[in-house]
Amino acid sequence: MSYERPNIAAMHGYISGEQPEDPEAIKLNTNENPYPPAPEVAKVIAAFNADALRRYPPPTADDFRDAAAVLHGLSRDHLLATRGGDELLRLVITTFVAPGAAIGTTDPTYSLYKTLAEVQDCPVISIPLHTESWQLPSDFPEQMNDAGVALTLLVNPHAPTGLLISHSQLKELADRLDGLLLIDEAYVDFVDPNLGYDAVSLVHELDNVIILRSLSKGYSLAGLRFGYGIASPELIRPMLVKTKDSYNLDLLSQKVALAAINNQSHAAETWTRVRSERNRLVREFTALNLPAAVSETNFLLISVSDIHHNQTSAEQLYRGLKSQGVFVRYFSDERLRDKLRVTIGTPEENDRLLYEMKSILVQDSG
Amino acid sequence: MSYERPNIAAMHGYISGEQPEDPEAIKLNTNENPYPPAPEVAKVIAAFNADALRRYPPPTADDFRDAAAVLHGLSRDHLLATRGGDELLRLVITTFVAPGAAIGTTDPTYSLYKTLAEVQDCPVISIPLHTESWQLPSDFPEQMNDAGVALTLLVNPHAPTGLLISHSQLKELADRLDGLLLIDEAYVDFVDPNLGYDAVSLVHELDNVIILRSLSKGYSLAGLRFGYGIASPELIRPMLVKTKDSYNLDLLSQKVALAAINNQSHAAETWTRVRSERNRLVREFTALNLPAAVSETNFLLISVSDIHHNQTSAEQLYRGLKSQGVFVRYFSDERLRDKLRVTIGTPEENDRLLYEMKSILVQDSG
Repeated sequence: MSYERPNIAAMHGYISGEQPEDPEAIKLNTNENPYPPAPEVAKVIAAFNADALRRYPPPTADDFRDAAAVLHGLSRDHLLATRGGDELLRLVITTFVAPGAAIGTTDPTYSLYKTLAEVQDCPVISIPLHTESWQLPSDFPEQMNDAGVALTLLVNPHAPTGLLISHSQLKELADRLDGLLLIDEAYVDFVDPNLGYDAVSLVHELDNVIILRSLSKGYSLAGLRFGYGIASPELIRPMLVKTKDSYNLDLLSQKVALAAINNQSHAAETWTRVRSERNRLVREFTALNLPAAVSETNFLLISVSDIHHNQTSAEQLYRGLKSQGVFVRYFSDERLRDKLRVTIGTPEENDRLLYEMKSILVQDSG
Repeated sequence: MSYERPNIAAMHGYISGEQPEDPEAIKLNTNENPYPPAPEVAKVIAAFNADALRRYPPPTADDFRDAAAVLHGLSRDHLLATRGGDELLRLVITTFVAPGAAIGTTDPTYSLYKTLAEVQDCPVISIPLHTESWQLPSDFPEQMNDAGVALTLLVNPHAPTGLLISHSQLKELADRLDGLLLIDEAYVDFVDPNLGYDAVSLVHELDNVIILRSLSKGYSLAGLRFGYGIASPELIRPMLVKTKDSYNLDLLSQKVALAAINNQSHAAETWTRVRSERNRLVREFTALNLPAAVSETNFLLISVSDIHHNQTSAEQLYRGLKSQGVFVRYFSDERLRDKLRVTIGTPEENDRLLYEMKSILVQDSG
């Protein structure tokens, strides 16, 4: 007999991005930072006393919370340290969304949201973004409220399009929502600082906003699994003392994460480099008739339109690149099947990507 | 307004054991192994290439699963690597117990079980163990079945008493249960090998058994947060591909855990030492009129009976020890309030414990 709950039996689970075995592969498919973490990360690991692992770790990672509080001009009570951003997403659902209550998001969006909703046995209300502009429909909050949505999950800047919703638009949206709004800022470090975007201040103004941060991309630490949540103490506290696993973060991760966020200048330099390459790639892709959506992230969503390249579909380009050892992300969803999501790599990786793309496109149109 | 779900708002959360700030404190209150982890653990950390943290870690920790499979004579499909045993407990509940369905256990038991049940909004059926013998009542499985229990959680050897249920008793119990049986073997490494206890073989015979293992105690790695589950592939698979966080284990932890279980001889030596001190402490406590329950773990539950020491209650002894920098565990529950749970330390730590105990008892009876 099967012991699985019916909702678990019915679901498929999240599919992670491909991890090529070949160490020579150019990996531009899972939005990792192309630069290594801060040198202080290596120092902390090298200096770590392994005997300290004998004891339980600090249960709420207060040293990290204090450092993040200083970074954001908040108090420790506004912060929750988590095992990647993924743990925060799960905890917000566990703590605030009863099974059967609806979870809202956009279409397209980060595909993990649907998986987490299925685990909690919650229906998902997906509101389509406008085609081409990828903007939210103007009545988005009312559609959420009418559907009785308890929690809205927005990734901002958006994945997989890269589009940034402004602070003022977010504020208006949170204000109009009946339920909670989680703003998933996994890619926020790559936003152009000239835009003046800052959503953290919203947690002072609105009691229904939770902000997700991750060290995976901005701090080159996807392998560490470390993120954090920012919200009012009333929202943080039940996750901190009731619903998170009692010791959710091991001692080594806590020390590494602390070293990483205390070294902003190293991280910020990688963000600048990624933005510079992002600008170059937009120009190069445009020249190849592969227009990219405006992105404030470390990836670009490019259109492989049949009109321009009637020999090469997005899927063919994806497969052609893969056969040359260059991995990008292809989605089979209806509205994304003529597109590819390409992570910004180092200049050398990007050159290789462009070289292979040109070879395939020339070949197919020749 | 409060956004918490009613079951979350109503619960209190798990209380971790005290973590004294004084580095000189003798810490015998949270069942940590008194010896450091294997030297290979330190080597793996020192040799770790921090730049590898830039990429996502292996999502299912297959290197560790393969090593654990060899250790237990199973295949990888029988194994799930988790963020401590706690994550496995949560995943089993998430995957197999619908909100509202009952979770069964004993009274007393590991207090986290109740917390995890409350998070899932599940009632807890607690069947009292026999007083003094701490044995299960003979109709335990029928009581579980009559209450419609979907999942029974048994810690074996038991916490906080230390008592071991035999393989044959477990098999009969699992056979008679309608639901799943999770056998939490967090302390199994300290069982006297002459007893021939081995519950792992049950996963071949019965489709409703899940075994929990932890590296926290047996491998001196409480600070690492690493454990694993052993069960039939049918039970492992939905947790592996659907309900666990997509990357639940960071890269460093995976490498450290692998080094630890590949060095059985180091760990086994710590188990032998702990058993030797356990035998000595039982004799010493008996001489102090502080009888200990028979324990197959790395702790002893001792009775501070008013009959023998009418000047000193368990709580007074706990406080007296704490004032001298020796931390043991005191429980305020009705049936445990005349008892203390004492972790087996190094010979030197145990000597200090005995010295302080004698001082307090002599003083109070003088």
